[in-house]
Parts: sequence; structure tokens; C-alpha cells
Amino acid sequence: MFNEVKSLNEECGVFGVWGAENANYLTYLGLHSLQHRGQEGAGIVTNDHGKLNSYRNLGLLTQVFYKPSLLNSLTGNAGVGHVRYSTAGGNRIENVQPPLFDFTDDQFALAHNGNLTNADTLKKDLEQKGDIFKSSSDSEVLLHLIRHSKQAIQIDKIKESLQQIKGGFAYLMLTKDSLILALDSHGFRPLSIGQLPNGGYVVASETCALDAVEAKFIRDVNPGELTIINDQGIHVDTWTDDTTMAICSMEYIYFARPDSNILGVNVHTARKQMGKILAREQPTDADIVVGVPNSSLSAASGYAEGSGLPYEMGLIKNQYMGREFIQPSQELREKAVRQKLAAVKGVVDGKKVVLVDDSIVRGTTCAFIVKLLKDAGAIEVHLRIASPPFKYPSFYGIDIQDRKELIAAHKSKEEMRQQFGADSLEFLSETGLIDAIGLKYDFPYNGLDLSYFNGDYPTPLYDYEKNLSQDF
Amino acid sequence: MFNEVKSLNEECGVFGVWGAENANYLTYLGLHSLQHRGQEGAGIVTNDHGKLNSYRNLGLLTQVFYKPSLLNSLTGNAGVGHVRYSTAGGNRIENVQPPLFDFTDDQFALAHNGNLTNADTLKKDLEQKGDIFKSSSDSEVLLHLIRHSKQAIQIDKIKESLQQIKGGFAYLMLTKDSLILALDSHGFRPLSIGQLPNGGYVVASETCALDAVEAKFIRDVNPGELTIINDQGIHVDTWTDDTTMAICSMEYIYFARPDSNILGVNVHTARKQMGKILAREQPTDADIVVGVPNSSLSAASGYAEGSGLPYEMGLIKNQYMGREFIQPSQELREKAVRQKLAAVKGVVDGKKVVLVDDSIVRGTTCAFIVKLLKDAGAIEVHLRIASPPFKYPSFYGIDIQDRKELIAAHKSKEEMRQQFGADSLEFLSETGLIDAIGLKYDFPYNGLDLSYFNGDYPTPLYDYEKNLSQDF
Amino acid sequence: MFNEVKSLNEECGVFGVWGAENANYLTYLGLHSLQHRGQEGAGIVTNDHGKLNSYRNLGLLTQVFYKPSLLNSLTGNAGVGHVRYSTAGGNRIENVQPPLFDFTDDQFALAHNGNLTNADTLKKDLEQKGDIFKSSSDSEVLLHLIRHSKQAIQIDKIKESLQQIKGGFAYLMLTKDSLILALDSHGFRPLSIGQLPNGGYVVASETCALDAVEAKFIRDVNPGELTIINDQGIHVDTWTDDTTMAICSMEYIYFARPDSNILGVNVHTARKQMGKILAREQPTDADIVVGVPNSSLSAASGYAEGSGLPYEMGLIKNQYMGREFIQPSQELREKAVRQKLAAVKGVVDGKKVVLVDDSIVRGTTCAFIVKLLKDAGAIEVHLRIASPPFKYPSFYGIDIQDRKELIAAHKSKEEMRQQFGADSLEFLSETGLIDAIGLKYDFPYNGLDLSYFNGDYPTPLYDYEKNLSQDF
Amino acid sequence: MFNEVKSLNEECGVFGVWGAENANYLTYLGLHSLQHRGQEGAGIVTNDHGKLNSYRNLGLLTQVFYKPSLLNSLTGNAGVGHVRYSTAGGNRIENVQPPLFDFTDDQFALAHNGNLTNADTLKKDLEQKGDIFKSSSDSEVLLHLIRHSKQAIQIDKIKESLQQIKGGFAYLMLTKDSLILALDSHGFRPLSIGQLPNGGYVVASETCALDAVEAKFIRDVNPGELTIINDQGIHVDTWTDDTTMAICSMEYIYFARPDSNILGVNVHTARKQMGKILAREQPTDADIVVGVPNSSLSAASGYAEGSGLPYEMGLIKNQYMGREFIQPSQELREKAVRQKLAAVKGVVDGKKVVLVDDSIVRGTTCAFIVKLLKDAGAIEVHLRIASPPFKYPSFYGIDIQDRKELIAAHKSKEEMRQQFGADSLEFLSETGLIDAIGLKYDFPYNGLDLSYFNGDYPTPLYDYEKNLSQDF
Repeated sequence: MFNEVKSLNEECGVFGVWGAENANYLTYLGLHSLQHRGQEGAGIVTNDHGKLNSYRNLGLLTQVFYKPSLLNSLTGNAGVGHVRYSTAGGNRIENVQPPLFDFTDDQFALAHNGNLTNADTLKKDLEQKGDIFKSSSDSEVLLHLIRHSKQAIQIDKIKESLQQIKGGFAYLMLTKDSLILALDSHGFRPLSIGQLPNGGYVVASETCALDAVEAKFIRDVNPGELTIINDQGIHVDTWTDDTTMAICSMEYIYFARPDSNILGVNVHTARKQMGKILAREQPTDADIVVGVPNSSLSAASGYAEGSGLPYEMGLIKNQYMGREFIQPSQELREKAVRQKLAAVKGVVDGKKVVLVDDSIVRGTTCAFIVKLLKDAGAIEVHLRIASPPFKYPSFYGIDIQDRKELIAAHKSKEEMRQQFGADSLEFLSETGLIDAIGLKYDFPYNGLDLSYFNGDYPTPLYDYEKNLSQDF
Repeated sequence: MFNEVKSLNEECGVFGVWGAENANYLTYLGLHSLQHRGQEGAGIVTNDHGKLNSYRNLGLLTQVFYKPSLLNSLTGNAGVGHVRYSTAGGNRIENVQPPLFDFTDDQFALAHNGNLTNADTLKKDLEQKGDIFKSSSDSEVLLHLIRHSKQAIQIDKIKESLQQIKGGFAYLMLTKDSLILALDSHGFRPLSIGQLPNGGYVVASETCALDAVEAKFIRDVNPGELTIINDQGIHVDTWTDDTTMAICSMEYIYFARPDSNILGVNVHTARKQMGKILAREQPTDADIVVGVPNSSLSAASGYAEGSGLPYEMGLIKNQYMGREFIQPSQELREKAVRQKLAAVKGVVDGKKVVLVDDSIVRGTTCAFIVKLLKDAGAIEVHLRIASPPFKYPSFYGIDIQDRKELIAAHKSKEEMRQQFGADSLEFLSETGLIDAIGLKYDFPYNGLDLSYFNGDYPTPLYDYEKNLSQDF
Repeated sequence: MFNEVKSLNEECGVFGVWGAENANYLTYLGLHSLQHRGQEGAGIVTNDHGKLNSYRNLGLLTQVFYKPSLLNSLTGNAGVGHVRYSTAGGNRIENVQPPLFDFTDDQFALAHNGNLTNADTLKKDLEQKGDIFKSSSDSEVLLHLIRHSKQAIQIDKIKESLQQIKGGFAYLMLTKDSLILALDSHGFRPLSIGQLPNGGYVVASETCALDAVEAKFIRDVNPGELTIINDQGIHVDTWTDDTTMAICSMEYIYFARPDSNILGVNVHTARKQMGKILAREQPTDADIVVGVPNSSLSAASGYAEGSGLPYEMGLIKNQYMGREFIQPSQELREKAVRQKLAAVKGVVDGKKVVLVDDSIVRGTTCAFIVKLLKDAGAIEVHLRIASPPFKYPSFYGIDIQDRKELIAAHKSKEEMRQQFGADSLEFLSETGLIDAIGLKYDFPYNGLDLSYFNGDYPTPLYDYEKNLSQDF
Repeated sequence: MFNEVKSLNEECGVFGVWGAENANYLTYLGLHSLQHRGQEGAGIVTNDHGKLNSYRNLGLLTQVFYKPSLLNSLTGNAGVGHVRYSTAGGNRIENVQPPLFDFTDDQFALAHNGNLTNADTLKKDLEQKGDIFKSSSDSEVLLHLIRHSKQAIQIDKIKESLQQIKGGFAYLMLTKDSLILALDSHGFRPLSIGQLPNGGYVVASETCALDAVEAKFIRDVNPGELTIINDQGIHVDTWTDDTTMAICSMEYIYFARPDSNILGVNVHTARKQMGKILAREQPTDADIVVGVPNSSLSAASGYAEGSGLPYEMGLIKNQYMGREFIQPSQELREKAVRQKLAAVKGVVDGKKVVLVDDSIVRGTTCAFIVKLLKDAGAIEVHLRIASPPFKYPSFYGIDIQDRKELIAAHKSKEEMRQQFGADSLEFLSETGLIDAIGLKYDFPYNGLDLSYFNGDYPTPLYDYEKNLSQDF
């Protein structure tokens, strides 16, 4: 939720609904509560008695739907929506989801959160057959596989296709008569199902979106699950039984909204626990604990509770900061950066500060924040990171695919401390992280994907093997 | 150019450039002068040393490129652009052109003016093979055919593909190393080539776009032509030799800008000539001649010159009218319509008026304009149409595909006169139209497609046969 | 109406209504048809049972009222509105009219078209008494005088105040119970009264605005008139009897919309007559007559009729040109200017052209247009101006207050011809202009203010004497 | 900072600078950090070698200055700026500050934070003399008094004028040669002076704006102070010696940014202390402490620290909520409200919650928030308010001028508790508040204005006496 500063980005949020008047508005509300998962583009497709209508564009949800008529034109009782973070080439409108495909005799819409690890290989194969892709994203590969499948009925086509793709994915598919959801075999991306007061179903990347439409949480979607929701109700199936839970640990650490629960664990509570365990693992002789707003506040309050030190608001984020802020000349640029975040002099002046951050990715803002605090009078700044060093790229749905960008991949802890100007620097341990989240699955890490920290990827990496092996 | 009132729409304008710095800005200028051909969406793709970049969105060109950075990001020495009129479902962003296709090892962009008559059949065939279309428009069919072609080299793939499509088309294709242009075998849509002062080439739907970038007109593209422009120069080829000229007569009558030349004939001059011949064919006992602004002013001045009656500004168009005009309650709606067009009381009061309009399509505004003039004091209004009765739909690139919408298809001249409240109503004859334009080709109508007026379609209609045969 | 090119600007248009539901929307419609008189700011004040409400802002009317709620909030049965051209310092919001003044026990709104010649002197006097002006425009001086008046009743206060101000003015005043209109003693600015079908009254700068709301023209306001409209009806009074008609001749020549009538003379007809007489006075050996769109088309058609030469569309204006057009680098700027106006090659190539323009003020675009035509192949361009040389600044409501800007004030006809690159240059004579308009008043020039051409100002110039006498 | 929910509003923030290049951009940065003090309008006036330039409009600062050219046009080395909250009639552009007054021989700009208590009386007197006010706000009264002053020199005129006005005010005045600041005799509104690295001076409503431009805090402005900053330096004077410190206690409780210091007391620290003392005064048998984001988070963390209960993030504010959020039909409206604020189920479910809010004004959102928590599973909600009951309106610069709107003015504590659905409701005591802030002045309340809570107004109320005495 602090992406302007950290610049680590989820690739998207998805929301679906079946069986509700105002499907357009419910999807709008659901996406609005998922906006932190993607701010570059948004779109909605609705199903009005078998006819699919869509609208999408670049920008925040409220910018895309800047006038009510755009939303009102999306009539119907079912819908899927998507908010998107876009990587390089981000102003390509064709990459905004959900795409709506018009066949001469059918329609199909698709919303995808995640990243496929064998998309390039599949694309090349499909292009050999004459297929043409409409976007540079890999999301539509699934549809191409479905259309080429020789299976007789659609659900078997989908199963066969899912079995060919690798990586992390949570798919919502809207057809003329169903809302279909599918999750990868490791459950890398979160996906939850809820029920509306009227009996209709909703599906969303995070439970905060269920709350936003006042739906009751039913359950999290399981790895390998393929579920169909239509007017006959909800039909749970699987596309594979070879599953192992390995949910993205960064969802708990950084991405998800604090009010969401993932696999039954509240995100705020997990973060607070990370801070508490970090305080036990890495105690500090200091006066106050300060968190980097907004994503690290939970961990910081946990550190304070764990250490017995007072939790203080030593940094404040300007809530009016936006893209329309005028960028001045180069010499005034640092002043503009200071508009995003301010140190609270009256709090930190003359103090030894424990500065809690949730994670360090590129490390570009750490030095800036330490300097902010010291300029404001802090006599010592002890940086405590509520997760282990982030050393390995991600290929399941986060836009860090290059080790070169990861500071912890090529600098020692002492080198980082010096670069940041901090008086000390310590990280949460892997076991501390596992304990803080407290999942109970069996896999080596209790159901977590910790590959960011230890390089132990739950799956082969296919097209991305080269990214890992390269020197830097 | 008066589409708000007549609601007859060209489906687009295309522009391409090869070998010029500022290809982005030249394309912007060219498209701006073609804006009258489509106001619903605009886009540009440029080629920067083999890397294609694109931006497109819904709206007028200046709305799409609402900040310079969007245009500046399109670097390179070549480009293609498109302005689009969109029919029903018009807010579908995926239909805005030119689409840029990213293959794993190639890129390809396509700008299309026209309409294919066998697109549905081809689409169904291709979908059988697993192909997926990214838009509801038929423009991308060509690319699918190209990708499926078994020919060895690209130009042969394109030829083979062009041989499979039917209807009206002017294509601009931008690849990593070439700008390729292709015209249908009847030359339904206009397309001209020009040369920049620096030697680079430009291609455009109308010559006014060549003027806009100060390019020198070289020649019109011929039916059946397939031409490649790249760093080696311009290479003219054909994809068929079975060609007959049958250019859309409505380009001369209504669509094209008066300053454009089509096949060597200036549009204003042709329109003036239509008015002159109409005056000879259908003289009127009246005091003044008035044209409907802006598209009928040339014909009206011709009628005046031909008849010896004074040409007067009896109607005036409000140049500040736009979509953002607030639509009032139903009871005030007629007042809003009157904002678009006003009668000049001081001119028409007490006068017998010859009202010249270029054409009658749906007929919805004729009654309104006649009433405007009579409310302003005109004692007689004689409606003179500078083209024959528009009775047959178009399938080569104009959005009138249903006879039911065409008033002349189901009402007699006298019925129309009564409905419009005019004192008399006469049309230009077919031979008058042919003479006015003055092309010298051999085909029954000297190189013109007059199917709108006589139903004599130059080609079989394929998927559209049913549209013609239906009762109404 | 061609201000982007000529850059000669009216200072505003005013509209008022009393006794009509939807006063807000009627004022909006009226102002929309007066938009050509000012594009920099717009505003409306309405009277809802004695309570005045206002909204105004910078921009075109449709930009100011960019959402219906802004207009809808202006409830009531009466209103005044204003569109404004703003001179230097134009983005000063306080200068946008109509200002609404809130007194502790009263409200008063004021819309002003014109310019006072003794405003500075009056302001200085009033400032001596402690008065503070809210804008740099001189419009509010009248209100200050009214508030200082010792007269017992308001109408006498207004009369006394009007007697102190000099120059050109058409005022609309909206109070809690009346709409009051006042015109200067020479009738410099046009102002007309109409009646709505329901009996309510409207007042507007031009009769085109009466037409826009379907009001019936009643009469033009007379010089020295002070008229009160309220629920008791219309009460005509005068604030002076020492009046002489001297209406601004530039209204006929350039400013007013062709469909407006001023003092009973239709503007288009007057312009056409100017062209006809010019043809007689200054015949030319040429092939065609071309007018500069849009303001000179009437004169050009008159010249054609008078000379027997064909009237042709040799220049075309791009109707999609707007401020949002991206301004390119300096080297491409001329290309951008060419987007505004294009020569019609097919018409002018190889021709001797009579180019008719309504007037020459700064002369900055004449050379550009002559070059456009010659680049398009015209072999001779004979410039014919349908008004006399514009040599003297205006102080009654047009923003030319400095002789230095007027090319005819410091260059001979031959010098101008050379600068423009024309083959000949001739102007309409003063008597030709008087005859063309055809007013029947007695004053030296039959009721016209011709001071722009002959320096014979109908009044003393007060604060502006210095502008005239300065060397240049 | 949570005004969408509480709807209690500061009337503005002011910022001034003298002696700095980029005065425009520094003022922009300063105002941006004061945006929480007013979101309805913004403006800047700069002084470029004695010439004053201004721009202002309705909206947020970044909306007003939506393109760099608007800011860049405000050249000069000095400036004043204003952000404004506007009460009823808020879309009146004339009320946006700072107004720039153009005299025939002078210019003067004025930015005002506060509210005068005798403005109506003064206005009526001045109107008797013929004065006209340009806005419905009372800010310009001061200038009128200055212009009427018979004193010989400007600073004496200003002193004489300040002596006539009553109430709360912090004025920044920009003249051709000086930046002048004045504070009322009780220091109701905060105002601080800082110094830029280059030696220039800045003045701002809050110290966070000094930090935003990297200015060093020098000192707070004293009650009765009248200080002139110009190229000769800073000259401190007073307009009255009859002063008593009575700073607005709501600045500490609610308005100011946590990183600001007021009279040497950090706002966050004061709020935390309020929570701590409240915990001591009103202990609760509960499981967790939750604050209403964002304004009550400091107090809540203080309550947690004081009580030993864990501080939890039980409520979360959606940071993407904005005005452009589409308002749905009435039946869906509650869903839209829930988008602003969400309860964290995973945190509050099954818990006894202490809900800390900074204050209760109208009480409209309390019931909503209690319900949110209970819907999320909280078994008890104990509402603790970190300030005393707000019973009396404010007349020194906050927009609560009517006792009827204040729930604590006409309901008992038990009535409020029932209305809110809370399990208990307690307030901080007056002495607790005084101790928490910890000022050391002598006046009954150690330098604080506590009139909101006890009706003990530090001054006579003049025109507002009637507001207090009215029955309700």
C-alpha cells in the first residue's frame, strides 16, 4: 500500500460475482477495496442474460469509471473485474483486463492474477499453429489452449488447458452461463469465496473485498481447485490432485490489506506478530519504535509491544499526494519527495529510534528515510526489517524478476547498513516469519512460499531458469 | 463533416509515414486533418529501429493524446495511425486501431479503412482452427490469414491472404522493417501516396493529410495494389490483376474534405458541379439558394451559379457545439438541437428558398431544417438534393447496412416531401452525378460505385446477401 | 468568429431573462449562441424569489458548466449571464462576470459589455473615499457609484451613476426584484429585447441569442435607455436624452454572428453588400473569389456576385482545431499553424485569386494566407479587404487600445502589400461601408462609429487621450 | 484529517515566503502540506519585483494547479498562499483566497485564517460609507478598514484597523514591498516563522509546512504581533499589548498534522498523552484498543500504553476514496459509506474493544463505526473520547457556529451512548486535557481556549451573541 516509495508491486486483484442485481456496482465496490493491488488499469465485464458487456481503460478505478454512465451500461446479474499493476510498456491498453473475447458464436472474459512460468514456450508453440496474441501479458494463453483443446465439453477443455500451464495463477472466467474460478496447484495467489445476503456468490483476491460488498466469507479456494458457479449453484471440482500449499509470503508481509484474512490468518495480526518476534530476536537499546507508513505500522506496533518500548508516530505520510503533483525542476526534486513522507521532529528529536520496515527490496528509500529521521534530530536509527533479506526474484506474480534489482542479493548486511546510514540493521529470521504467520501445512515451510528469501522455489522455473542463473 | 446532424459515418481514416524524423508528430498532424472521417477513437504505432510502440484510446485525437508525453513516447522514423468511427458497442477499447500485435519474435501493426464482406465466414473458419479474435471489428482477419499462410516469404503470405478477403479495404501495415499498403480490387476506399521534402513517404486516406504535413502528392493507389515502402525505397507490386475501378461515390458527395483530391478530382469542385448540374436538371422559381452547413455549401454555391440565383448564408452552424453541451430535460431538448443549427431570419424572411443538401440518408433532420427556415419566415422551401435517392445499404466501409434505415428505400419522393414539409423535392440524376465527378474509367459508371443509388453492387455480397434480401 | 487567426476580440456578450422557468437553462442556451463574443470565461447569476445564486469560472461555457449540477444549482425565474474575452492577465478569475455582490442586506449582480473611457479617473476618485475594487476590469465602477449616490430611490441612484460614466456600455443588472438594462448614449454596443412564448422577457447582445431561446424579437435598445423589467412588466425610461446613434461598425464587419440583426440590418446581408460594393469599387482581373473562413465568407460571396467571378472554397478551416492541440517543437510550429487553415489545391492551382478578408488589424496572418494560396498553385493573389484601413484604436469595448499594433496605422498600402506578398491590395471605402450597412440615422456616418478608420471619435476620450497622442 | 467522516472543518491554512527564488514552488509545497486544513479552494499570489500576480480556483491544490504553466506564471521572490475549507455557498469562486486587490496605484493581497466576531457590524458600517465587499467571507473587512484609515503611514493604518476587528485571525498580507503578518490578541490560530537555508523567511499555519520547504523553525508568532518582512529583514512590532494566550485546543485535539509543533508542543505527543490520561481517568475492562483512523491513532496508542492493553489496527481507511467515487442508488449508499472505513474482522472478532475517538461533534458517524465493529464480531465496544464533551460552538475560525448541530449540547452522556449503540461512553476531563497538552501560560486554562467544552469564551462574542443565546 506504499508502492510509491517501495515500488514493489502486486500484479493485480480480481473480483467476480454471480447472481446479484447491481453486479456492476458490486464489482466496482469490490475492485475499489482491491485498488492497492494495482493502480494502472481497471475493467469490468458483466453478463446480462448471456450477453457480455465490457469496459476497461488505463488509470485508477475511479478514473476509468469517471462517469456513472460507463458503469451503468454494464448491465446484468454477474460480472468479473480486475485492477492491474502494469510493468514496462504499461500504457498499453490491450493489457488492461479483463479482456472480452467475441467469437462468432460465443463470448468469454478472463481475469488473471499471477504469472505463468512457461508462457513464452506455450506462446511460441501456439504461434506455430497460427495463433495471434492480443496482448503482451501472458494472461490469454489459457484461452488459446482452451480453444485448441480436443476435449468434448468445455470444463474438460479448461482442465486440459490448466494442466499445461505452470506458475502462479488465480483465474476468474466469465462465460455466457457461468463464472469459473481456478487456482494453481500451490495456491501461490490468494482467492476467497463469499456469499451475498441474497444467496449470490462473490470471489475475490482478498477477503476485504467480500466485506466491502457485505458478503459472508465461506472459504478460501484450494490449490488445484476448478469451481463453476452458475444458476444451478456452486460446483466444486479440481483440475489436479497433485497439490501442495505454498502461498506467497509477501502477501502477509506487504501486499494484502491489513483487514484481509488469508487462509484464516489476519494480515494485520500476522504483521504485528512479525514485529513482536523480531523484537525478541533483535532487541535494541533505544527510546522509541517508529514504523514506515502505512505498510509497516502493524509490524512496528508489534515490535513496540514485544520490546516494551513506546510506539510513536515518527513518520507521517501525506494523504493528498498524487500523480498530479507538479514535478519541479531537478534541483527542487528532493523537496517533492519530502512531500510524500515527513519525519515528526517533535517525536524523534534527541531520540534513539528503532525504525521498523516490512521488507527491503531495492533499498532505494531506506537511505532517504534514515536521513529524514536524522535530519529531524534522531541520534540513532536502528533499522529492523520484519522479514528476512529479499534475495531472490519472484516468478509467480510479483514484478521483481531480476536479481540485479535486489539489494540483498549482492550486498552484505553491513554494506547495506552503511549505504542506508543506519546505526544497525537486522532482519527477521525465516523461522520467525513462519512462526509469526502460523500456518499449519506440512510442506517445508508450513505452507508458505519463502523463495524470495531462500531461493527454494516450490516448482521448476521453466522459461525463467535463465533469470536465476545469470551472473550479476 | 456534419455528422452530428446527418449521422452517416465513414468508418475511418488512415495515415502512414516512412523515413521521417518526428514520425509521431507527422502522423498526429495527418490524423488531425482526417478527424472528420472518425471521431470515436484514435491511435498511433511508430517504428523505432525495428521496435514498435503504440498508444490508442477512445475519443478525438486531441483527447486521446491529451498530454505531449503520450505522443513523445512514440519514438521512431515510421508510423501508422488511425481515426475511427465506431458503430454500436462503440466504447469497446479493443476496437480502436491500429492494433499492435506482439509475437514472441515479431511485431505487426495494422490500420484498416473499409469493410470486409466475407469476414464472418472467414472468422468462423479460423475459429475452427483455434484462432481467437481480439476485437469485434473485422480488421484483424487479414493478420490471421497471413499467420496461417504456408507461403515461404512474408509478401507472398500477404498476397495469398488478400486474395481470400472480399469487400472494401485500404490497409496500412507496419512491420519491423516496412510500411506496406494494400487496396481492394475495386478501389472502393481512397488512398494516396505523397513524398516529404526529405524524401520520406506518406500514405493517407485523403490528400488533405498530405498537405497537412507538406508532402507532395505522388499518385493515388491503384485497385489491387500491394506496395512496400522501406529503407530501400518504394516497391510497387499487386496482389491481383483482376481489378475494376469503382470508387465510393459518397466520398465525393459527403465524406471527403473539400480540399482533398480523389483520383485527380477536387472534392469541392465535384460538389459544386453536382449543384450546377442539379440546377440545370431541376430549376426552381425561387429567390435565394441556401446550403446546409458545412457539407452542402459547395453544392449550394454550384446551384446558385448554375441557376443565377443569389447564394446566401441562410443557415449557420454553431462552431462551439460539442458533446459536453448539457442535455436538458426532455421538454427543452428541441431547444438544444436548435443550438447546432440556426436559420438566418434576416436572410430568409419573406423569401422563396432553394435548400440544397448533399444527400438524404435517414431523413431525420430534413423536417427539422425545413421547419427552421419556415419559422424564420421563408415562404417556400424547395429541397434540392445534390445526389440521387439513397436506397441501398453499403457494405464496403460505411455504417449503413440496413435498408430499413434508408428513407428513400421505403418512401416515394412525394411521401418524403410531405414528411419534410418542403414545397418541392428533387434529386440529382445518376448521369448528372457521373458527369459532375467526371471520372474517365470504363466500367458502367465511369469508375464510380453507385450501388447506394441503384443497387448495382460491383461485387458479390457474401455474408451480407441476407441484409439486402430481407423484407422491411 | 475566427479569433484564433485574427486575434481581434470583442470584450463580451451578455444575456438576461426575467419571468421564465428554467432561467438557468435559457441563459445557458443564450450564452452558448454568444460564445463567439468571448471564450475566456463565463458565468450565470439567477434570482430565485429574491435570493441570487451564481457560478462562474474561466473557460468556454461548456467547460465552466462541465457538469449539470453546476447549472441545476442556479434555480429561479430570472437570470443574467456573461461570456468574456479577457485581455492580458486573463487568468484572473475575479474578472469573470457577472460578479455577484453580497451586501449585508441586499444582493446585486452585473453583466457588462463595453469599455468605460473615464474608469481610471472614477476609480481613483472612489479609492480616495476608501473604495476597493474587486477586479482589474472597470465593470464594477458603476456599482460603486450607485452605492455612493445620495438619491433616495434606487432607479435615481442608477441614473445619477450612469450620468457619471463615459464610453461604451451595455449593462444588465440583476437585483432582488428586477432585471435592469442600460445602454450608453451612443449605442456603441448592440442590445436587443425579445419576448418568450410564455410572456417573459429576454435581453441579449445579439438577436441570435433571442432565436436560440425561441424568443420573439421586440426591439433594439436605444441609446440612453434605462429599462426595468420585473413582475409588473417592462418599464422603459432613459438616463439621458442627449443621445446620438454611433453603433460600432466592427460589429457588422467582423464580430457579430451572421444570423444576427443589428438595428434591423442582417449582419450576413450587410457583409455580402460590403463585398458587392468592394467589387464595384475595386474590380479585379481574376479567375475566382475566395474568402477567409469563416468571418469573410459573406463578403466574398458578395464580391463574387458583384464581380461575376465564381465564388469558390479555396480555403478550408479545420473544425477540430482546439487549444488542446499539441504544440510541437519550434521547427514544427508552422506545420501546426497549417492545421488551422488549408488551401484547396484543386481549386486554386493555376488560378488568379481574389482573396477577400473582412478587415486587417495586426496583419499577422495575411502573409501566411497569401503564402498558403501561392504554395497551392495560385498564380496571382489579389487581396481585397471589405472594410477601410483600420488605423485607430478602439476604446468602447474592443481590445485594440494601442496604435502600435495596427499595421495600417504605420504602413502604407504598398508597404502592406509587399509585406503580405500579395499581387494587389485594396480596401472598401468609408462611403462604401456606410452604403453597405445602410443605416438611416443622421449623424455624420448615418449612425455608425467609424473611428477605427477615420479617428473621428464620437465622444471625448478622457483617460485614453494619451493612447492616441503617443508617438509610435 | 478525517473530515469526510467527521465533517468538522478548519477554515484554512496560510503560507508565506519572502526572499527566495522559486517562491511559487515553495508556496505550492507549503500549501500541499497544509492541505488537511482546507480542500475546497486554493490560491497563490507572488510578488515579482513589486508586481503581484495571482491564480486561485476551487478544488484541491493539485486540481487548481493542474498544469505547471499555471504555477510557472507566478514569478517572483515572495508569495502568499491559502487553502480553504468553504462552508455553505462553497462554490463561490470569489471566496477563494488570497484575493489580490488592484488599486490604480497599488496592489495588495491577503490570506486569512480565522473568523471575525464583529465582521457583520463592521461591514454594515462600511457599507454605509459606500463600501462594497467582493466576497461573502469576512476576510476583506481588514483591507477596507486600512483603506479608510486616516493614519499617515501604512503600518499605522494597519495597526488602527487591527484594533477595530475582533475574533480570531492570522493574517498574511503581501504588498509591493513587504510580507506582513498579524495575529489576534489571543493567538487563537497558530502561526509560525521559519528561515530558509538561503536566509529567506517563511510563515505558515503549521510547522509541518516549514519542514516541507526545509526551513528551520525560528519561533511561533505571539498574540498581538504585527511583523513586517522585507528586503531589509524582519521587523517585529505589535498592534496591541493587551494580549492573553488562548490557543484553540481543537488544533491539538483534531486539526493539526501530528508532525506539527504548536507553541513548542508536538501534536502527536499531545494526542498520545490525551489517550494516556484518558486511560488513567477512564480505565476499561477490555481486550484491545482501536483508534478511528487517521486522526485518533495517536490518542489510541496512548490509551493502549496507559492501560497496558494491546493497540490494534481494528479499523482501516481506504486511501483511494475520493470525490469521484460513483454514488450509487439510495439502496446501495450504505455500501458506499463502508468503502471509506472497514473493520478488521480478524482483529476485533470476539473481542471487547476500547474504541478511541478524538472528539464527538455532530455524532453522525459514531453509531456507524460502533456498528461496523459489532458487525465484525466485537462483543463489546467501549467508546472513549480523548477530549471533553463538545458543547459550545466556535466563532474564532471553525465552522461550527450553531449549538443545534452539537450532539453533546442537547443529549446526556447516557443518551449519546444509547444512540451510538456503545457499551459505555466516557470523555477526557478538562484538567486531563490541560495536562496532556502541558502549556505553561497563566490564563485560567494554561493558555488554551476551552470554550468548546465549557462555554468560557476568552472574548465577548459581538455579532455572535445571538447564536449562543438562542433556544434549541
